[in-house]
Amino acid sequence: MEREFLLQATKKQLTPARWEHTLRVSETAAELARREGVDPDRAEVAGILHDYCKFWETDELVSWIKKCHLPEDLLSYHKELWHAPVGAEVIREELHITDEDILNAVRYHTSGRPGMSKLEKIIFLADYIEPGRRFPGVDEVRELAKTDLDQAVLQAMNNSIVFLIQRGQKVYPLTLLARNDMLDQIAEKHLREESF
Amino acid sequence: MEREFLLQATKKQLTPARWEHTLRVSETAAELARREGVDPDRAEVAGILHDYCKFWETDELVSWIKKCHLPEDLLSYHKELWHAPVGAEVIREELHITDEDILNAVRYHTSGRPGMSKLEKIIFLADYIEPGRRFPGVDEVRELAKTDLDQAVLQAMNNSIVFLIQRGQKVYPLTLLARNDMLDQIAEKHLREESF
Repeated sequence: MEREFLLQATKKQLTPARWEHTLRVSETAAELARREGVDPDRAEVAGILHDYCKFWETDELVSWIKKCHLPEDLLSYHKELWHAPVGAEVIREELHITDEDILNAVRYHTSGRPGMSKLEKIIFLADYIEPGRRFPGVDEVRELAKTDLDQAVLQAMNNSIVFLIQRGQKVYPLTLLARNDMLDQIAEKHLREESF
Repeated sequence: MEREFLLQATKKQLTPARWEHTLRVSETAAELARREGVDPDRAEVAGILHDYCKFWETDELVSWIKKCHLPEDLLSYHKELWHAPVGAEVIREELHITDEDILNAVRYHTSGRPGMSKLEKIIFLADYIEPGRRFPGVDEVRELAKTDLDQAVLQAMNNSIVFLIQRGQKVYPLTLLARNDMLDQIAEKHLREESF
């Protein structure tokens, strides 16, 4: 199939504006992947699919969360979080995506999680820095992304958490765990580098 | 005994500077308690005892964390967190404090937790706003504390989380859960008030 089929299937699910965003995420992800030694085709596919359920109705998202036994704590947090884990289930079932790393990249592209793979980090970051994004702090993350994937992901997570706190919104606990884990990963990398 | 015995027992555990802080927390807590309809004597006792293990050696704190089966995730987070849950165990064992609300106020005075009692909130807040505290944002929390315990606690938690993020330090997950829970509690209170 693949690419053309996935593009057409996804395009039908999204508004034109979100479709443009999706293409930019996909391109940004492929670029980051090339630099990070990750298969750019898989990064492109994950980028195409990451927002597959973005415009699904609340009821439908809730019904998939329950049907697939996704973490029920999602329902106590912002709806914006739901399309990612539901999206992973839907593209597995409806588009027959079986690559677990692609599924996880879609599943965790909004929340992050501890122990993210390189592909997961790439999609998380591409979604944050694609060239259409305009918000405070994004340029700093774009700069970091040119040289250090982990630092860029950490900074994006920090910005998101602080943004939510300042807006008086709840922060999904997995996002904090992901951010704490990035700090640990970075500290361990520095330790390894120092020991050489 | 009580008050005089507890004062002397605690004073021995602390530096003179921390002892001054402890007395200020205790007074601030008693004041807040009077306003919130909580027994000021219990608030005073919790304030006296809250930092009981503040200057204990790391090894000793770790050994109590293990001996008492305290949450082992503590050991992956900043040592500053340890004196509070260990303190609760020590004052139960060595000073025979049996009031669970006082024990919890000591246990959670650094991390917070979801579902904090009024006394727990009072000690958490008194530790943050006692008149010797000087850090960015503390005056705003002091103002809030004059009229709204929950908003003041939320703001103190927000400040602490953002401070740690900006300093590149890990945030203990229970603190985020506590902060999310404060948001829920405040939202529920507003809903209840609107329905009258």
